[in-house]
Amino acid sequence: MNFASDNWAGCAPEIAAAIAAENDRVAPAYGSDPLTKAVERKFAEVFEHEVAVFFVPTGSAANALALSAFARPGGLALLHREAHANTDEAGAPEFLADLKLIGLDGPGAKIRRDTLAAAIERCAPDAGRHGQPVAISLTQLTEFGTAYSVPETAALSALAHEAGLGVHMDGARFGNAVEGLGMSPAEMTWKAGVDVLSFGGTKGGCWQAEAVVFFDPARAREFPYLRKRAGHAVSKARFVAAQFAAYLEDDLWLRLAARANGSAAALAEGIEAAGGSLAWPRDGNEVFAILHETTIAELKREGASFYDWQADEAGVVADHGLVRLVCSFATTREDVERLVAIISRGQT
Amino acid sequence: MNFASDNWAGCAPEIAAAIAAENDRVAPAYGSDPLTKAVERKFAEVFEHEVAVFFVPTGSAANALALSAFARPGGLALLHREAHANTDEAGAPEFLADLKLIGLDGPGAKIRRDTLAAAIERCAPDAGRHGQPVAISLTQLTEFGTAYSVPETAALSALAHEAGLGVHMDGARFGNAVEGLGMSPAEMTWKAGVDVLSFGGTKGGCWQAEAVVFFDPARAREFPYLRKRAGHAVSKARFVAAQFAAYLEDDLWLRLAARANGSAAALAEGIEAAGGSLAWPRDGNEVFAILHETTIAELKREGASFYDWQADEAGVVADHGLVRLVCSFATTREDVERLVAIISRGQT
Amino acid sequence: MNFASDNWAGCAPEIAAAIAAENDRVAPAYGSDPLTKAVERKFAEVFEHEVAVFFVPTGSAANALALSAFARPGGLALLHREAHANTDEAGAPEFLADLKLIGLDGPGAKIRRDTLAAAIERCAPDAGRHGQPVAISLTQLTEFGTAYSVPETAALSALAHEAGLGVHMDGARFGNAVEGLGMSPAEMTWKAGVDVLSFGGTKGGCWQAEAVVFFDPARAREFPYLRKRAGHAVSKARFVAAQFAAYLEDDLWLRLAARANGSAAALAEGIEAAGGSLAWPRDGNEVFAILHETTIAELKREGASFYDWQADEAGVVADHGLVRLVCSFATTREDVERLVAIISRGQT
Amino acid sequence: MNFASDNWAGCAPEIAAAIAAENDRVAPAYGSDPLTKAVERKFAEVFEHEVAVFFVPTGSAANALALSAFARPGGLALLHREAHANTDEAGAPEFLADLKLIGLDGPGAKIRRDTLAAAIERCAPDAGRHGQPVAISLTQLTEFGTAYSVPETAALSALAHEAGLGVHMDGARFGNAVEGLGMSPAEMTWKAGVDVLSFGGTKGGCWQAEAVVFFDPARAREFPYLRKRAGHAVSKARFVAAQFAAYLEDDLWLRLAARANGSAAALAEGIEAAGGSLAWPRDGNEVFAILHETTIAELKREGASFYDWQADEAGVVADHGLVRLVCSFATTREDVERLVAIISRGQT
Repeated sequence: MNFASDNWAGCAPEIAAAIAAENDRVAPAYGSDPLTKAVERKFAEVFEHEVAVFFVPTGSAANALALSAFARPGGLALLHREAHANTDEAGAPEFLADLKLIGLDGPGAKIRRDTLAAAIERCAPDAGRHGQPVAISLTQLTEFGTAYSVPETAALSALAHEAGLGVHMDGARFGNAVEGLGMSPAEMTWKAGVDVLSFGGTKGGCWQAEAVVFFDPARAREFPYLRKRAGHAVSKARFVAAQFAAYLEDDLWLRLAARANGSAAALAEGIEAAGGSLAWPRDGNEVFAILHETTIAELKREGASFYDWQADEAGVVADHGLVRLVCSFATTREDVERLVAIISRGQT
Repeated sequence: MNFASDNWAGCAPEIAAAIAAENDRVAPAYGSDPLTKAVERKFAEVFEHEVAVFFVPTGSAANALALSAFARPGGLALLHREAHANTDEAGAPEFLADLKLIGLDGPGAKIRRDTLAAAIERCAPDAGRHGQPVAISLTQLTEFGTAYSVPETAALSALAHEAGLGVHMDGARFGNAVEGLGMSPAEMTWKAGVDVLSFGGTKGGCWQAEAVVFFDPARAREFPYLRKRAGHAVSKARFVAAQFAAYLEDDLWLRLAARANGSAAALAEGIEAAGGSLAWPRDGNEVFAILHETTIAELKREGASFYDWQADEAGVVADHGLVRLVCSFATTREDVERLVAIISRGQT
Repeated sequence: MNFASDNWAGCAPEIAAAIAAENDRVAPAYGSDPLTKAVERKFAEVFEHEVAVFFVPTGSAANALALSAFARPGGLALLHREAHANTDEAGAPEFLADLKLIGLDGPGAKIRRDTLAAAIERCAPDAGRHGQPVAISLTQLTEFGTAYSVPETAALSALAHEAGLGVHMDGARFGNAVEGLGMSPAEMTWKAGVDVLSFGGTKGGCWQAEAVVFFDPARAREFPYLRKRAGHAVSKARFVAAQFAAYLEDDLWLRLAARANGSAAALAEGIEAAGGSLAWPRDGNEVFAILHETTIAELKREGASFYDWQADEAGVVADHGLVRLVCSFATTREDVERLVAIISRGQT
Repeated sequence: MNFASDNWAGCAPEIAAAIAAENDRVAPAYGSDPLTKAVERKFAEVFEHEVAVFFVPTGSAANALALSAFARPGGLALLHREAHANTDEAGAPEFLADLKLIGLDGPGAKIRRDTLAAAIERCAPDAGRHGQPVAISLTQLTEFGTAYSVPETAALSALAHEAGLGVHMDGARFGNAVEGLGMSPAEMTWKAGVDVLSFGGTKGGCWQAEAVVFFDPARAREFPYLRKRAGHAVSKARFVAAQFAAYLEDDLWLRLAARANGSAAALAEGIEAAGGSLAWPRDGNEVFAILHETTIAELKREGASFYDWQADEAGVVADHGLVRLVCSFATTREDVERLVAIISRGQT
């Protein structure tokens, strides 16, 4: 019973088939092949907007290199204290983008408008000392499994743009957010002021497919160099293109996200029905549950894999713990039912 | 007729099958899965030595991060002026390893012992100003398609070790070198003083499989952080492991290299028989030919893809040009014969 | 009436004389002159301990380069959120030391033991993702003008050392702290577990004299390279040595600090006598006063220079503001009395 | 007898007096004082052009930060292999500017036009791999004591500008070059296409005064951040301003340079008269002499301080050595005559 992470799954059969099919061709390396070009056009179609798209091997590289596009000397990037880029990437954004990250507070791992306004305000005076804010980064889904609504994104973007900051969205679970909110990719991004998106395919069902998507191609002018000097230019890039081609075809990415979100929804309902509680609303494929310690121990005994989590704001009471349960496209109905059954026993 | 690069090919059927097979499993991410552990043991078997192995997405990352393991403030890495890491990686080693590269001269893109001795000597005095030499990097095969013999490698390594420098080998085409020289992987590396190897699988027949192999695991202590902060820790690492598992199984990697080297040998013979000449001896799967301009034009007209090359030492005479012709495991006998036929027409 | 900063003052006459006196000599550059050697011995005497001393041009360089000595890939440095190195150096520590700074909370700009323990705890698990904590940095005096007592320093150092972290002290106003607490330089530093100290002379009465003092010279092995590659090796270093020679002679540095602290004490008493209040206890030469807006405006009208300050914890009430008033060795009794007189008028 | 370096001297009495005089004032820090503003205007007057001027503590910082202004991802800076920034700054330009340096050959440590053209040409194709050339750096005086003539500078600048590269001049000994060539500061720089100049005062007679001078202030927009994040923003900057004020007043800088150049001229004549030979023409205050080993030994025995030098092109014959003899404003006629006398004895 894997609820540890959506990157423990393999890849969807359609993706595997696409990789295999690409194998018979011979084509130029480093993205100058026809398939890569076709996939770039497909991205433009999906987002209903001109885009510049760059494949990178990891989500950390996508985030750091996307932020690099806004980097300036003494640059500051504002993001939530709990953002993946701030807590789980071992300083990759600082190292690759030469930026200082300013972690902001906010419930549900989401930045609030007034908090962002105050942070920008504070950096402003005597910027020679503080450095200069250059961008904000929004994690979608957040590290607490919540999603920024389109109006929330738009409000933060507007504030950032007024102050001359760029807007980056870390979309490692972008598909889950899009499907969860039921909005279009365009509404979720450029229509809400997002300048550059880390578009994650790996957690969604590819085996390794991450892309940096610029909605203003002019902003991407230096990106080939940013990517190359960081060692992130994959030679047989067409195999990444093949994954994205299949992933985007007939909305496969959204259908896979729907499956993962559906499993998470069933899991959340089951937990609450069993008397367990959720630390935050479930907006996508992640459930953060507050369970009794004996139940958590029992789950582990039964072979369920998942992570214990820390968050003061979750308000975990005595003898209880906070756990993160992640569903992927590959999560089975059986595993969800089994998990819920164990929890039901435990809570009663 | 692809003679442009060995990274224009797809991957060997055995590799494709391995990726597909891995797909049904669910397993932990970031290399903590059993397959990755098994592949690490396989590397130890292949090299007849305890090793620490780390997968990275690109050869540039492998080189830069391997050199990082030797980095110290003001550190200098000595390599051939024509080394891939010096000319074709857009400053990745300087950027990722905070090293300054010192490019040395030498015929056939190989460093000579006396040149290395002089370079180390020059860096020594008043090192506070010059910086401190920390490592040498040997490209195997070199950018001119030649190979360092085992005694040559051993002599350079000995010199480096005497001066307290580490020894890195860039083995993007390591399989071709091993097969070409007919030595064992152990003889080519740690027995000849190599401390860390960039082991390339991508050009050899994988679709994306590069590894950094340390022969002194203690030296690799910080590597997980070096890799993570550079954004090079791939989450579904087991798919890279799957490629290496198939690649190393029953010496597939050497059989694929033998095929590529054999095609290059046939090509070289054909060119010389046709009156063309080689700029450097062919030691692996690359042929650097000096051909008449009309022949070069004819080859392009006939649809052959390859790169024009620059090298003063090649001694290209008037109306002639230097071209690089690379064979891969996928190069067909037909393509070789067709290319030779065109050249034969041209030279007569 | 300068109460803006202690770096607005010139230098003490003894320092000026020392620079002038040095001028007649000819001596080797980059610190290999006899005076520099003598000053290094003087530092050892002042701190009653073997030391390795390096001059640098600025306090920011001292902090960043001192932390570099502890830097490791994916390294994290823990310090107070309000620490100068975190808020006023435009990312210099991140840029020069390749570290990620983790800002901690705590009243009076001081880190509390339990907060540090929790932060270290949180970084520990799965460090590959979070990075690895390598050092803590204590600002002495803090940015709120408070001082870490010797027991406070010792407790934090012990905690850091248990976890394998180094201990850095940012002593831009070290002299003021030493004089204010009435402890010896040794008790304030290595006896309390400090590994490396940024010893500031500029704010204390030199015109440009900052030093990085290592209490374990072995730890400083790479420092000459760290300093040189950052462009911080001053050629005519003996003029910095001359300043330190005079500054340390007959405890001039402590006598100058006593003068600055004394002015600040008189200022603080005057303000409280006048009905104003202090945001934090005055431990050195800085007074943070909460005054009525009309008083603040009046002070500015009368030509007093000082900075408005921000700090939620200061508990500033309506119609009032928080101001920072800094005294230097050059602050006159007249200026203090004049400032107090204006405030007295205002508060009544 | 100091002929080791011009940075072994103290500072000119006028400079010492200026520092002392500045001491009585109280003024804002970090360059916002009136004197600093006045000195900036003085620079504009000296160069007959609008300028943006920034003080930094060292020549290495000046060079690296000046080049930073042209830095772009994967950026390459082209300079002579023997340039100070390439051989004597421990990788500071690479580290502070994230640039890769490409060292070019050329007699007399000067880049030739055709060599630069070929280097730019080579970087051009497939720049994604090679990186992108962003600037050239000319050392004036060069490390072999020669000077670029104005037409030479203009020709290289024109070539650089055509290719979109910026032009930096490392003027650590700019005064010696200006005086030696007898051209105006304007003719030596912006009129010959120089975009940014490292203007050195320290070797010329200040004790620590280096400036980065931009002839296009727009290009300097980010410089305050570049300087601050590198720890190079000196707080009591007005003491640097005081040195420059005196140094530029009534052409003191050129009068001091004339003295140093004059001593070098006398030295060169004396050496040739004594049968010694010069490796390169003397254009400023440095003499590179080829002397018999016994003479070199005798000079050292007599207490002369100077550096042995390495340069294959110098054509040093058997039993002879190459030495660098540097004169400063403080070099006495007596020292020159004594040195020549010893050499005369030796050579006969």
